[in-house]
Amino acid sequence: MANEKAKIGVVGMAVMGKNLALNIESRDYAVAIYNRSASKTETVMKDHSDKKLVPSYDLQSFVESIEKPRTILMMVKAGKATDAVITEILPLLDKGDTLIDGGNTNFHDTIARNQELAKSGINFIGMGVSGGELGALQGPSLMPGGQKEAYDRVAPILEKIAAKAKDGKPCVTYIGPDGAGHYVKMVHNGIEYGDEELIDESYNILRNAAGYSVDDLANIFKEWNQGELNSYLIEITADILTRKDDLGDDKSKPIVDMILDRGANKGTGKWSSEDALDEGAPQSVITEAVYARYVSMLKDERLAAAKVLHGPAEKPDYQGSDLVEDVRQALYFGKIMSYAQGFEQMRMASATYNWDLKYGELAQIWREGCIIRAQFLDEITKAFDKKPDLNNLLMDPFFGDIANKYQAAARRVISYATAAGIPVPSLAGAVSYFDSYRSEVVPANLLQAQRDYFGAHTYERTDRPGSFHYPWYTEQ
Amino acid sequence: MANEKAKIGVVGMAVMGKNLALNIESRDYAVAIYNRSASKTETVMKDHSDKKLVPSYDLQSFVESIEKPRTILMMVKAGKATDAVITEILPLLDKGDTLIDGGNTNFHDTIARNQELAKSGINFIGMGVSGGELGALQGPSLMPGGQKEAYDRVAPILEKIAAKAKDGKPCVTYIGPDGAGHYVKMVHNGIEYGDEELIDESYNILRNAAGYSVDDLANIFKEWNQGELNSYLIEITADILTRKDDLGDDKSKPIVDMILDRGANKGTGKWSSEDALDEGAPQSVITEAVYARYVSMLKDERLAAAKVLHGPAEKPDYQGSDLVEDVRQALYFGKIMSYAQGFEQMRMASATYNWDLKYGELAQIWREGCIIRAQFLDEITKAFDKKPDLNNLLMDPFFGDIANKYQAAARRVISYATAAGIPVPSLAGAVSYFDSYRSEVVPANLLQAQRDYFGAHTYERTDRPGSFHYPWYTEQ
Repeated sequence: MANEKAKIGVVGMAVMGKNLALNIESRDYAVAIYNRSASKTETVMKDHSDKKLVPSYDLQSFVESIEKPRTILMMVKAGKATDAVITEILPLLDKGDTLIDGGNTNFHDTIARNQELAKSGINFIGMGVSGGELGALQGPSLMPGGQKEAYDRVAPILEKIAAKAKDGKPCVTYIGPDGAGHYVKMVHNGIEYGDEELIDESYNILRNAAGYSVDDLANIFKEWNQGELNSYLIEITADILTRKDDLGDDKSKPIVDMILDRGANKGTGKWSSEDALDEGAPQSVITEAVYARYVSMLKDERLAAAKVLHGPAEKPDYQGSDLVEDVRQALYFGKIMSYAQGFEQMRMASATYNWDLKYGELAQIWREGCIIRAQFLDEITKAFDKKPDLNNLLMDPFFGDIANKYQAAARRVISYATAAGIPVPSLAGAVSYFDSYRSEVVPANLLQAQRDYFGAHTYERTDRPGSFHYPWYTEQ
Repeated sequence: MANEKAKIGVVGMAVMGKNLALNIESRDYAVAIYNRSASKTETVMKDHSDKKLVPSYDLQSFVESIEKPRTILMMVKAGKATDAVITEILPLLDKGDTLIDGGNTNFHDTIARNQELAKSGINFIGMGVSGGELGALQGPSLMPGGQKEAYDRVAPILEKIAAKAKDGKPCVTYIGPDGAGHYVKMVHNGIEYGDEELIDESYNILRNAAGYSVDDLANIFKEWNQGELNSYLIEITADILTRKDDLGDDKSKPIVDMILDRGANKGTGKWSSEDALDEGAPQSVITEAVYARYVSMLKDERLAAAKVLHGPAEKPDYQGSDLVEDVRQALYFGKIMSYAQGFEQMRMASATYNWDLKYGELAQIWREGCIIRAQFLDEITKAFDKKPDLNNLLMDPFFGDIANKYQAAARRVISYATAAGIPVPSLAGAVSYFDSYRSEVVPANLLQAQRDYFGAHTYERTDRPGSFHYPWYTEQ
């Protein structure tokens, strides 16, 4: 029936695709669905026979079942599967149709695909989708980048399916051209790595240096979640720490004590660090979080090393008056440095790729639906509202003041953890970043002397412009 | 004269190519030389008319002037220039000829070129050359990778031109197939970044936290160079700190105080970190050194930040008994962690690319000629002689014992620097790495719980094999 075409089509009926299709359908849209293997589509139709889902079992029928100009959301495994779908579907599309890639795609690939498809008159939107399976179904945070006119056409649907912040605003906005959406999703994930590592370091200090029990820690995190640290990750950490083992012999044991300490990753934190290295953006908090996962994976090596490498000979006393409050402040301090680094990285990339990113809006659409959702994102939006060209979050009075105030706690906590033999790579990276960033002079003058000495790389001077070479090999 | 062909040809008469050609010639070989623009070749011939240099002004004559099977060393700018030379020269070569790329080439490019040229029966050696202009002339450290039989043919020349260690051994060896040579050079450069940053942090602590003068520091580094830190970089640092300004109004000022603190880089440290991220190798010391250069480049931002971000309110007293000795131990401790990370990274890459790297030999050929030349490299060779499959340098008793012994000083120095507001990113990264690597349990158990909670990523258990998912969303 030609007059009952679907508003949008979804390719890929794995859990993310299925849940997004159901989410869209629940907003009163007919949704065309397709999956390479028919059985998945059949299962979806069987489980949701009452829904306005329009199944197809070949791409031609699928494409024909969608209203023109067509909007097709691809939810397939990033990489070859994405290319395979594009290759197969392209001959079936008309100029002005829009493909949306909602996979976890590297932004470089998205830029290339956007440019390639534009030659055929097809719009290509790379869209970051955060919030996991549940978010996809109930309301994710969406980060779409690509042709603005294509975004505008699909915006009403995206705004309906996205999570809503407390002020009612949907957690979606136009991020920018070509790869901007997938780029911002990548940095979001990097920031998530940093948040998690800072929480894990805090837990490790309180538990293994100071001896708090898992129950104590559950309460501490629960209390922290009432204050300025309020966020999804702190909330679930508190909940995790209350949970007991469901499988082992002793069901009174905390589940965390039954979980193997090998921290896996799916690569987006790594991409984020590699991009920081490409951009010249100092991104130490996130990168140290990536490396912390890498060390954790070397479990067998660590067990062998633990036998021959010793920790500190003595257990230190804490030199401050309130360790728990200091760790809280240190965690918040570290978080601010991590976001400052992430937003500075995005600013650099925005210039590199001509994206004109709106930083305040990015913080806004992360307020709900995604893993890093947190109260303090409102403050980031405010900071960029006041000063859209803000270089660095630390230059905003709100964040600068907290950093100034909480630095003392962060320094005490690093001293304590370091004396106790507890690794704090991301927190230490945060404080070193703060101390470098606020330094009029860093010791790179000595570095430039070294480089000029051994490689004649020349140096710049403090008293005049230009490049100079010192006669190092002349006797004085 | 057909019977007086050159033993080897050098393409590219910029300073590195010229100096390597002169070095080879000085070992009694006739060297064919060629440069795209004739004027450079003419200048070389004018300046060195008494040498056995065989100039050509077109590639055909150049190739014909070299003994078969030919060996041709390309010393041109890495990237497009390398491809341009290969494209132009390939039709003139015969099967069994060998091209050597002595540029600062990314090892991925070298792997690709090696495989592509092998199709035409041409050997391709990617060779890392360290030691700068002077090293090229007098004896560099050479890291050649590619076809073993091609290496064997050119080995007599390379062994003659390479630097010689104190035991007389030449600083060159066969590194491994295809990109292995350029890979090892890349990690060498990364390690160099780490060494420099650790030195610069030590200087910064002693000067700006403890108030030592530049003259004091010159003497401190000079003394350190007499002991186990003995190395080229410590030696030149001591020398740099004695040098006075040669250009300014006040020629009594130390030159370091006239040098702008913007630390430049040519990208190999970045490549090294990106590869560590690809390999899953925790390489925090080097990566923090790269980021330290990046922050240093943000000079204008730092000047603005210095006005609003404050350091610690009080100047700390040092809590140890001998700060200078503690900083020395901390520097050595950091250096050991950096090399442990670098060698672990090479071990991972060797498995990824099937290179069968000989780690002990790598340390041997870095003993002279290159920037990181140092006494303690002998100890690395010994460690791998004892145990060629050593996982990590820290598992060797020599390095493990020093790490165990010097950790206390490193921890005190971090506390002091952090309390004083002096950034110590690489040293802090080193201690956190040590504390993670020697930890039976790291807090990645909590991380895995978080990932399983929000993303159903599953977790492994301590008491049984397999992947598990906890029923987080079930009420307890």
